[in-house]
Amino acid sequence: MRKKYLALVSLCAGTMLLSACGNLGSGSGNSVTQATQRSNKGYQTTGQADTSDYQGVIENGRYLTSKARGVGIIQNSENMLNLKSFESGMTTLSKEEFPTKDYIFREGQLLTKGTVQDWLGRRSKDNPTGLNPEDNGEKDADKRNPIYIQQIEEQDYMKENDGKLELAGITIGIGMNRKDYYQKEQYGAMYTTNISKEKMEEEGKKAAAEVLKRVRKLDGASDVPILICMYEQAPNDSLVGGTFYAYSVSDGDTLGSWKETDLQTSVLPATSANGAVNDNDESSFNAFKNKTQSFFPNLAGVTAQAKYKNKSLQELHVKITTQFYSETEIRSFTQFVSQMAKTYLPGDIPIDITIKGSDGEVQAFLAREKDSGSFYTHVFDD
Amino acid sequence: MRKKYLALVSLCAGTMLLSACGNLGSGSGNSVTQATQRSNKGYQTTGQADTSDYQGVIENGRYLTSKARGVGIIQNSENMLNLKSFESGMTTLSKEEFPTKDYIFREGQLLTKGTVQDWLGRRSKDNPTGLNPEDNGEKDADKRNPIYIQQIEEQDYMKENDGKLELAGITIGIGMNRKDYYQKEQYGAMYTTNISKEKMEEEGKKAAAEVLKRVRKLDGASDVPILICMYEQAPNDSLVGGTFYAYSVSDGDTLGSWKETDLQTSVLPATSANGAVNDNDESSFNAFKNKTQSFFPNLAGVTAQAKYKNKSLQELHVKITTQFYSETEIRSFTQFVSQMAKTYLPGDIPIDITIKGSDGEVQAFLAREKDSGSFYTHVFDD
Repeated sequence: MRKKYLALVSLCAGTMLLSACGNLGSGSGNSVTQATQRSNKGYQTTGQADTSDYQGVIENGRYLTSKARGVGIIQNSENMLNLKSFESGMTTLSKEEFPTKDYIFREGQLLTKGTVQDWLGRRSKDNPTGLNPEDNGEKDADKRNPIYIQQIEEQDYMKENDGKLELAGITIGIGMNRKDYYQKEQYGAMYTTNISKEKMEEEGKKAAAEVLKRVRKLDGASDVPILICMYEQAPNDSLVGGTFYAYSVSDGDTLGSWKETDLQTSVLPATSANGAVNDNDESSFNAFKNKTQSFFPNLAGVTAQAKYKNKSLQELHVKITTQFYSETEIRSFTQFVSQMAKTYLPGDIPIDITIKGSDGEVQAFLAREKDSGSFYTHVFDD
Repeated sequence: MRKKYLALVSLCAGTMLLSACGNLGSGSGNSVTQATQRSNKGYQTTGQADTSDYQGVIENGRYLTSKARGVGIIQNSENMLNLKSFESGMTTLSKEEFPTKDYIFREGQLLTKGTVQDWLGRRSKDNPTGLNPEDNGEKDADKRNPIYIQQIEEQDYMKENDGKLELAGITIGIGMNRKDYYQKEQYGAMYTTNISKEKMEEEGKKAAAEVLKRVRKLDGASDVPILICMYEQAPNDSLVGGTFYAYSVSDGDTLGSWKETDLQTSVLPATSANGAVNDNDESSFNAFKNKTQSFFPNLAGVTAQAKYKNKSLQELHVKITTQFYSETEIRSFTQFVSQMAKTYLPGDIPIDITIKGSDGEVQAFLAREKDSGSFYTHVFDD
């Protein structure tokens, strides 16, 4: 999981520039425009495969990537789950404020890579905009000033006006550390400064107010609603990403009131260190796990990530890993898992199940949407 | 791809025996039985997630694995695509003869690992049942006796009789080499003996007749229909697996007439060495590819495996690999690909599209069944 984006970091677009795409002009009437939505409106989007997802903005025939593209990968290189859940969570929280039927998603265009990197740095003579405290010269975990703010990301939400897309809302995610990892000397051992929940929240509110003030000054952002979402980064060794803990909507120069998200993520099977949020969900999962893992003479590994809101289960993401000796074993196992999931796993919530071989390659996939009784199954042929 | 099962070979079930599954008895009435189909019939199956798939046999609460489990992995270790397409193809051909609504699938129980390995060996004093010719001592590619028969697999098709499952049909797949790879000395260079199509077919027919004769003598196999399917192994460096070229159904001691499958598999984009089977399909794919690969500033790799019968396209499996810099990029790309696929790819055939990051991890998946207009999409969250 952790290596998921690592390969990306070292690669830059420089050597991979497109050589030929002359037919992808920005005008309406070309094939891309025809294939995507609202082609007669003078702008292009990705189209929508599912109404619960946002359409994305295409410009000059290409996806309009973030002005700060790649910063998230650098800032989460020690645990990429923190990036995935940060960005997924921002999108999910945005859907309440900026519904997918009314808004179109655009990757952040106001904050550039340089700006975000400066903000994420320590404040200093060279970096007056740094949101993290200045280096006080201390090396001791409890005396040094830790890095509180680990990542910042902007998402833009657009609306049509006179056939053009206009910025109509902004979501800013701020990722806060509970643990700040540091070295006392280059290439030295890794130390950790622990940050209390209270301190994290306090520093988060300060940063949010400052970020809002700065974003309001940016072009086109003076009077659109801004949703600011506060995220607690998961530790580097966590098997799940972090969680959004609060958000605030601002219509003017000051932050709105803070609301708690009441979101929780837990890993199943539960351990003594990581208890289950809900005992019923845990025993349902354990029943499913026991049936599934003993299907073959060799054991299967079965884990899940359970997402809660107000302690009520919202989603379940199951991962199964086992050794397969043939394609027919994969097919039979998939059918069986589908039956066991239907029988044992909680009903009425979205569930997806990924089945991997012992080499980590995905072999099959099952999913159930919220309102559907049976599982969609797919076996990856080759 | 090739490494897909390699990790499996070295692992054996020995150290991974189940420690606790006392609740999975064979009697009816336990939870597994209730959850699977026909629980009142005194036997268990995997259940059926899709009526076009076979249910598989469960015995004593576990999947009944093949008596020759693992032989396919050893015999195809140089190109695992040959195993995937061999087993998928056997299942597909079996569906004509043994429809999924009437038959239940059982992994081969008649041919043991030892038997199959002996048959795949060279005939010799020590191995009188070897189906491959004896070693004539020659090292020259054109003078030596090549290994014609690379793999043999059995699949069993069961029917219910008096509440019990009875063997009602057998499918035997025989994988034939067009290239036999060999070394003149241990750890030495790899040489190749080429085998003509005619010679492969001739040797295949001989082997099929002999295999039929032997299988007929096995317990329960004396009078069930036996489907024998002949498969041409793909070369080691092929990006697609091999193809079934002929089959024969036997109701008695002799083979039925041979029928050609008229199956073909091709890779898109086509190359001068591997031409397209159908020019229209190729240009549809190329249009899709051009739109898709230039979505991001960085290029995406887009390839497909096209399966044909009588030169008419039956299935398309598309693979896209690109660098993603965020979760939102994955979501937007998936929506876009769904639109492009709907617009450009051939209608009315099943299509699946797998989207991987540059590290090879699956990030999203799209599929359309034969009769459905739009694509099912799924983004793998974490």
